[in-house]
Amino acid sequence: MEQRKYRCRYRLFVAEGDKIVREALASSLTVECLMAKEEWLRQLPAPLRAKARETLTVNDRELAQISTLKTSNQTVALLQIPEYDTDDKELLSDLSLYLDKVQNPGNLGTIIRIADWFGIRRVMCSEGCADPYNPKTVQSAMGAITRVKTCPADITTLQRLKSAGLQIYGAFLQGENLYRSDLASQAVIVMGNESQGIGKEAAQLIDKRLYIPSYPAGTPSSESLNVAAATAIICSEFRKPHQP
Amino acid sequence: MEQRKYRCRYRLFVAEGDKIVREALASSLTVECLMAKEEWLRQLPAPLRAKARETLTVNDRELAQISTLKTSNQTVALLQIPEYDTDDKELLSDLSLYLDKVQNPGNLGTIIRIADWFGIRRVMCSEGCADPYNPKTVQSAMGAITRVKTCPADITTLQRLKSAGLQIYGAFLQGENLYRSDLASQAVIVMGNESQGIGKEAAQLIDKRLYIPSYPAGTPSSESLNVAAATAIICSEFRKPHQP
Repeated sequence: MEQRKYRCRYRLFVAEGDKIVREALASSLTVECLMAKEEWLRQLPAPLRAKARETLTVNDRELAQISTLKTSNQTVALLQIPEYDTDDKELLSDLSLYLDKVQNPGNLGTIIRIADWFGIRRVMCSEGCADPYNPKTVQSAMGAITRVKTCPADITTLQRLKSAGLQIYGAFLQGENLYRSDLASQAVIVMGNESQGIGKEAAQLIDKRLYIPSYPAGTPSSESLNVAAATAIICSEFRKPHQP
Repeated sequence: MEQRKYRCRYRLFVAEGDKIVREALASSLTVECLMAKEEWLRQLPAPLRAKARETLTVNDRELAQISTLKTSNQTVALLQIPEYDTDDKELLSDLSLYLDKVQNPGNLGTIIRIADWFGIRRVMCSEGCADPYNPKTVQSAMGAITRVKTCPADITTLQRLKSAGLQIYGAFLQGENLYRSDLASQAVIVMGNESQGIGKEAAQLIDKRLYIPSYPAGTPSSESLNVAAATAIICSEFRKPHQP
């Protein structure tokens, strides 16, 4: 399942390690196969164990062969890839992310984890994004992969949401100061590719271009923030006014 | 230079790719050796080219052998590792980061890039942190590695800064709501290890424990944010009141 073609054919993905496998077993996802060391299985509560359709006890050597990590963990699970579509009703009443060709699997996973932290339930991924079920993405997203709905989307999705009245924000290096902008609580935030930023097509649909001011203003600094770091700051600003 | 022992022995590190090598050549760092394809060298402005102590023209095959990346770039440079010590005068008059065993090289690099964006000139790294000159760290930090000073530090550094009157903040999962805290402009922000958080010793020195509220309050979500994502949000909050 390390290769995308096999993930596509079998609609399965791999989750590794104590924490994430426990969260997967506790989630609504279907665990096709749970592979774990005997000690680990013994400590697993029966209701969680019952969630796996099949359970295999494996030893260290077998685990190392299955694992996609350098240092393998206690357990590896094969999960069904859930199929989420773009549910307009949910999107129109909430804050969501639209990722325009975010290519790095680690960045995508970190963004899914950020979305989860800030109660953003849907992350739309354009063509050209990393696969949300890439083992590296799953590893960076951690348990968030079991909660946040990632769904394929394209420019027509954005167009439809905009026509339905949703505000479309985008992260740029120039625009309106994020800290001083009116941020709607029902909106889409578009984040762009690691080196190219937001593509032309998506850029044309954006109502408000936001930028994160660097400090102090006007000094030479990094040309940009990493896309996941920028997503974290922007989501934090969007959610803050609504904190109790 | 992919291995730490060689970086230590020769005090050299590797920077790869057009952007970062140009920034390195324009920086105060010493470029021991510049290796690049002929076309790339031809387009390089003479003053930048003159900064390299030695220049080698290489072909694709040679570049692929030198490169630490899967897809090698146009150029690779060998740079002297600068030696920064903990300059108390600078630290006492500024905002700095102290990383307590941040192990992942990618996270460390992203944090260095965040520091650069927010005008944080020093990142103190405890023992157990990833090496700031690991190729993965350099790649994530991008040009920021040429501007931000990373320096080895330990608990006695924190103790000294605290005794001198500097406020020590730390990121925790419980504490004071980041959005409502008084944040000093001269301070140290301590960020902890990816899975363990801030260690006991450092925790004892912290004046104010900050947490980033998840949204909505009280729902199950990711147990924590990625350390670089949390650093981004915290630095943004520290710098915001001082924006023009």
